[in-house]
Amino acid sequence: SASPGVRPLSRCPLAWGRAALQLPGLPLAPCRAFSNNKILVELDESSGVATMKFKSPPVNSLSLDFLTEFCISLEKLENDRACRGVIFASAVPKIFSSGLDITEMCGKSTEHYAEFWRAVQEMWLRLYGSNMVTVAAVNGSSPAGGCLVALSCDYRIMVENPKFSMGLNEAQLGIVAPFWFKDTFVNVVGHRIAERSLQLGSLHPAPEALKFGLVDELVPEEKLQEKAEAVMAQWLALPDHARQLTKSMMRKAVLDRMVAHREEDIQNFISFISKESIQKSLRMYMEMLKKKKS
Amino acid sequence: SASPGVRPLSRCPLAWGRAALQLPGLPLAPCRAFSNNKILVELDESSGVATMKFKSPPVNSLSLDFLTEFCISLEKLENDRACRGVIFASAVPKIFSSGLDITEMCGKSTEHYAEFWRAVQEMWLRLYGSNMVTVAAVNGSSPAGGCLVALSCDYRIMVENPKFSMGLNEAQLGIVAPFWFKDTFVNVVGHRIAERSLQLGSLHPAPEALKFGLVDELVPEEKLQEKAEAVMAQWLALPDHARQLTKSMMRKAVLDRMVAHREEDIQNFISFISKESIQKSLRMYMEMLKKKKS
Amino acid sequence: SASPGVRPLSRCPLAWGRAALQLPGLPLAPCRAFSNNKILVELDESSGVATMKFKSPPVNSLSLDFLTEFCISLEKLENDRACRGVIFASAVPKIFSSGLDITEMCGKSTEHYAEFWRAVQEMWLRLYGSNMVTVAAVNGSSPAGGCLVALSCDYRIMVENPKFSMGLNEAQLGIVAPFWFKDTFVNVVGHRIAERSLQLGSLHPAPEALKFGLVDELVPEEKLQEKAEAVMAQWLALPDHARQLTKSMMRKAVLDRMVAHREEDIQNFISFISKESIQKSLRMYMEMLKKKKS
Repeated sequence: SASPGVRPLSRCPLAWGRAALQLPGLPLAPCRAFSNNKILVELDESSGVATMKFKSPPVNSLSLDFLTEFCISLEKLENDRACRGVIFASAVPKIFSSGLDITEMCGKSTEHYAEFWRAVQEMWLRLYGSNMVTVAAVNGSSPAGGCLVALSCDYRIMVENPKFSMGLNEAQLGIVAPFWFKDTFVNVVGHRIAERSLQLGSLHPAPEALKFGLVDELVPEEKLQEKAEAVMAQWLALPDHARQLTKSMMRKAVLDRMVAHREEDIQNFISFISKESIQKSLRMYMEMLKKKKS
Repeated sequence: SASPGVRPLSRCPLAWGRAALQLPGLPLAPCRAFSNNKILVELDESSGVATMKFKSPPVNSLSLDFLTEFCISLEKLENDRACRGVIFASAVPKIFSSGLDITEMCGKSTEHYAEFWRAVQEMWLRLYGSNMVTVAAVNGSSPAGGCLVALSCDYRIMVENPKFSMGLNEAQLGIVAPFWFKDTFVNVVGHRIAERSLQLGSLHPAPEALKFGLVDELVPEEKLQEKAEAVMAQWLALPDHARQLTKSMMRKAVLDRMVAHREEDIQNFISFISKESIQKSLRMYMEMLKKKKS
Repeated sequence: SASPGVRPLSRCPLAWGRAALQLPGLPLAPCRAFSNNKILVELDESSGVATMKFKSPPVNSLSLDFLTEFCISLEKLENDRACRGVIFASAVPKIFSSGLDITEMCGKSTEHYAEFWRAVQEMWLRLYGSNMVTVAAVNGSSPAGGCLVALSCDYRIMVENPKFSMGLNEAQLGIVAPFWFKDTFVNVVGHRIAERSLQLGSLHPAPEALKFGLVDELVPEEKLQEKAEAVMAQWLALPDHARQLTKSMMRKAVLDRMVAHREEDIQNFISFISKESIQKSLRMYMEMLKKKKS
């Protein structure tokens, strides 16, 4: 299904573990079976711009498989000198990404929770710390983990459809966004807006997402790709080295904090998600989603 | 004078000292004579929403008695499972609260200054760290400590009367807002606006308070109560546990910093306020207020 | 060339090294030959307001001589009880200051780089930490180090000419703004705007500089002086002591961080600027400027 521009991805990435911004202590992930079937990766070698298109219907949820593929694909591009920037978009209509896959957090073993959470962390560490220019072309709704993906990019363009919304709505589900989701959010919208939005678990319709600074601009859907490419070209006009060092300077404190508390964060997640009350509310939420669908 | 909804408050609160967000090291306050005569507390058990109405004419100044009553009332509500949120408002026309009572800071003993300042700290620790949803219905001017009360809530609604103003105007009186007033302010309006406003000791008329983010919205006076209840209902629609943990995550750094420097902060206050130059400027300020009144 | 209001400046400032806000560890600068020929300093003793006018054509670049004169002049005013505030402006048309003098960073010795960088640090420490009220009257473009001068003041007024622009555009030259340039910028415009602007090396035309908060207001060129004096009068209406302590409270963390990493920052600068790739790109940039001129 890959287009001609897609480069082959090895099944066992040797380079894995070398973080973009020299993050200390990123462990080698176990070598996982891998196939490029949830994300369509295309690299235009002439412009140096890759596109990562999420094509995991129905809602591009961030499952363990999706996250693993995301990390491997991003790592490949990171290590490819021909690639200087990545545009993220969805190949599924109306949804950018629905966020973390709740089935990975429900009725599973402690080991599974640990593996899943490590993958979520890894995705963020690689994306927020990427040396490449990263642009989110948000062509659909983007709650929770989907919002985190967008917030971790350098620039966010959203389709101006008020039916599309975006936000860290974890509190609505009875769960709490991890501190590094919060740190990322605060770096984008400031403390006050983050405090209110996180406590209310707000999903902001596109116009409000712009007003509160969650996204940088809105465009009609048919202009999204063109706009994303124009923004990318503007960012790539800068010399890479200075831009990368500047990006690292801006994000280092928040990245370091997560790396320093990584294992603790995994344990927190496990003990939180293992609570019967949390499991119950996640099961209820999934029931609700199923009913909604049918 | 209490309305039927007011619950009795014990004279010696046994639960005192258990902080909402598990703040370490909050000492037991001495058991003080107490009567519920400066704050009208009403709890609507059906909605879980309490109202604390300041009724300490002429200007609801934060005296030691007021602060003690405030802390005990808030603690009572905090420990009452029937109460999930509190709306703060004034029962005195045109003024929300004039801030710290200057008579407590003028010509008193070192011991008195220490006791007073500990009570100011305690008020803020309990309010900023409250597990309940806190909404300020700012129905009058709100300088200095009065502004701090509003800034420490989760949401601020102000009457759209441009004659009502709000701000940390300590610098106008020749004194300096403590670092935790500043931290609270910065968390609401950001560093730049706080830097400018604190240095100028600005009192922002309602429209400017909205523009600079000191309050979240303005409403006509007759709509204030209704609006406060609607906002409260929106916040209470969230599951308490996730919302509380989220709030704690957002405010913990600033709360911890104060707790860590609490005794030092008391000593700083005492040595600052004991200076003859400061005593003189406070006396002059009180003279001016007296003349203004007559 | 000095006007009657200019006070004599000693050639070897004994008081040098005493920082405004009691910064620890500011070393005594070597006694340098000095003449007041790059900055016109005037003090109006009746208002307590001094003006420092940059008159170092063609573009008021921050050379070692300029920086030394800047520091000595500011120190003189800081120690003069008759002076409570300083307005900074340019005596050169269309340019406020072009920023660091690139000739000081090109083809010089390691010792020269160290001396130059220490002078840049010193300028910022004295200006950002000044006890006086500082107002930037930005009557021309203000890139890089010129922007830093303006950002370090208490208030910024810019001429509303869209041909004048302002920003930390280091990344455009292939270099990276030091962390304390970044900290100063973040304190003014917040994290998100700083992250984007620094990575793109943006120069914001006056209207955008206002929109993004780099400046506080725009005025027609003929109103600039009058406006700067009015703003200064407003700030000077506050008691000095409380205002100074408040300013120190707001800026201390960022000042302390630089002082703590000062020597490291000098070494970083030397090793960065000594790289052949950086030297090459600076030479190319200077060539481009020369061609542009002719």
